[in-house]
Amino acid sequence: MILGIDIMGGDYAPDAVLLGIAQALKKLTPETKLLLIGNEHYVKNFFGERQIPADRFDYFHTEEVIGMDEHPVKSFASKRNSSIVKGFEFLKQGKIQAFASAGNTGAMMAGVMTVVKPAPGVIRPCLAIQIPRIKGNPGIILDVGLNPDAKPEVLFQYGIIGALYATQLYSLQNPKVALLNIGGEESKGNLTTKAAHQLMKNNEHFNFVGNVEGNDIFDTEKSDVIVCDGFTGNIILKQAEAFYNLYSERKMNDEFFERFNFENFGGTPILGINANVIIAHGHSNPKAIESMIIQTSNIAAAKVSEKISEHFSKIQVQ
Amino acid sequence: MILGIDIMGGDYAPDAVLLGIAQALKKLTPETKLLLIGNEHYVKNFFGERQIPADRFDYFHTEEVIGMDEHPVKSFASKRNSSIVKGFEFLKQGKIQAFASAGNTGAMMAGVMTVVKPAPGVIRPCLAIQIPRIKGNPGIILDVGLNPDAKPEVLFQYGIIGALYATQLYSLQNPKVALLNIGGEESKGNLTTKAAHQLMKNNEHFNFVGNVEGNDIFDTEKSDVIVCDGFTGNIILKQAEAFYNLYSERKMNDEFFERFNFENFGGTPILGINANVIIAHGHSNPKAIESMIIQTSNIAAAKVSEKISEHFSKIQVQ
Repeated sequence: MILGIDIMGGDYAPDAVLLGIAQALKKLTPETKLLLIGNEHYVKNFFGERQIPADRFDYFHTEEVIGMDEHPVKSFASKRNSSIVKGFEFLKQGKIQAFASAGNTGAMMAGVMTVVKPAPGVIRPCLAIQIPRIKGNPGIILDVGLNPDAKPEVLFQYGIIGALYATQLYSLQNPKVALLNIGGEESKGNLTTKAAHQLMKNNEHFNFVGNVEGNDIFDTEKSDVIVCDGFTGNIILKQAEAFYNLYSERKMNDEFFERFNFENFGGTPILGINANVIIAHGHSNPKAIESMIIQTSNIAAAKVSEKISEHFSKIQVQ
Repeated sequence: MILGIDIMGGDYAPDAVLLGIAQALKKLTPETKLLLIGNEHYVKNFFGERQIPADRFDYFHTEEVIGMDEHPVKSFASKRNSSIVKGFEFLKQGKIQAFASAGNTGAMMAGVMTVVKPAPGVIRPCLAIQIPRIKGNPGIILDVGLNPDAKPEVLFQYGIIGALYATQLYSLQNPKVALLNIGGEESKGNLTTKAAHQLMKNNEHFNFVGNVEGNDIFDTEKSDVIVCDGFTGNIILKQAEAFYNLYSERKMNDEFFERFNFENFGGTPILGINANVIIAHGHSNPKAIESMIIQTSNIAAAKVSEKISEHFSKIQVQ
């Protein structure tokens, strides 16, 4: 299994990326190879100075970089030797089983939509995060920002995608999928969630457990997967960040709350597309890059995109 | 100034309400009178046993109660001597300057919509909460649940209402009103927030400071007032509750985080209507009732509903 890593992407690249790679290396199985895409000379020098075994990696050398503030679509179209463009090329050619970057998110989305493309049958790809919980697996919330105006059929598909993701990632048999709403009863909600509830109720594609509310987000008993539109999901994600900031400002100290430190958070997969693509926050530090790589490895090993594509190819949804 | 208090409303009424009233009494100015609506005999007996001066209050005796689980509209229509129906009657007659209850929220809304009614010009009334912040005044967020499908013009009016509320409650000159969104640029958001941004930009009714994101909710520098639809606002409110629960479960201890204890949270005004109405959580304990009464007193003294109605009567909005 080969994972492509963009070593030029992120506010602190390449150094933070390389340090994260060195840390991740200790936790990866020997069968997992990393293809480092970027300036090979720089890497070998950097690793050499730190006694990190540079021969443990494969390389694709390129010096072209899409900057964090460049126009995503234009730069993706013109910088054909950039690390991000090359990553998508290798994905499409099947040379790598996943591609991860903390670089320009818009350029990553350009690669997703123009090179990798949504899986046939999927109306809209989405971003899924894992949110810390005290007990059990982290909760999966999707979408957290790709589609601010998701229609009920799109939310329904997120239920399918989320269930497959949880099944593969956590080896769950029948993950509990809930709809984020503002009341437990099916009559509650906005127009979209009310219609989505009707589509999800008694469906045969996933184990729909009904509505959950904002105060249920961290409750392992109530759900494994929470479905919402990208607007609401983004607000939830950012509000969690806000709480972590309050916690830090108040100089509190708690092992569990530290998991909300988004600097260490790793990556977010884009689901519902024809390949495993993971994007990380531009601010990613070495710890975040390490998490991103471990997560990329887990997602590639679980064949998440393959399983989702396979499922959608079999069904005619709605 | 006379505040009407429903002593029969709430899961722990009347005892929790009466204990809260006794505590609030110490903090109210001598000009603030409380009209206790409910079983007068019970109150006098209860206060007598506890050496609370029962003669400090006015009373309206009634034994009829709308239960917490009763059908709101039907019970409001049929129980004409209930404490909630009487409260709205007294509001309409001008006998009280505000009415507060921790009782059946639906019945309170029935009173709002059928007796008090929205202020002329206001498309949709809303619920405004005050959210704790480390520095400065609490942040005002509206709407937190009345209108899950708010249109852009409704969000625009929330801006007006929120600005007037902040002006009156905190004696601010020109409160900063922000639109909750998923990006800072005006092109970001869902269809509703993008359209609302255009209505708010350069408007003459309030000091619009642009978009804020979920991680800015607690930031005093960025906003005094945050406008959102009732779906998103409700999720924010409940997610804050979820974080408080995590904090409690982890047995952490912080003076600031304690302010997120929603059991102590007091009431929420319904804004954009022809009277000052405050609703509190059904679970309200004496501390929450005390906060509810103090807040009711502040809102009545600041003539919040009167100022909002006055403003809307002067303008032809949009």
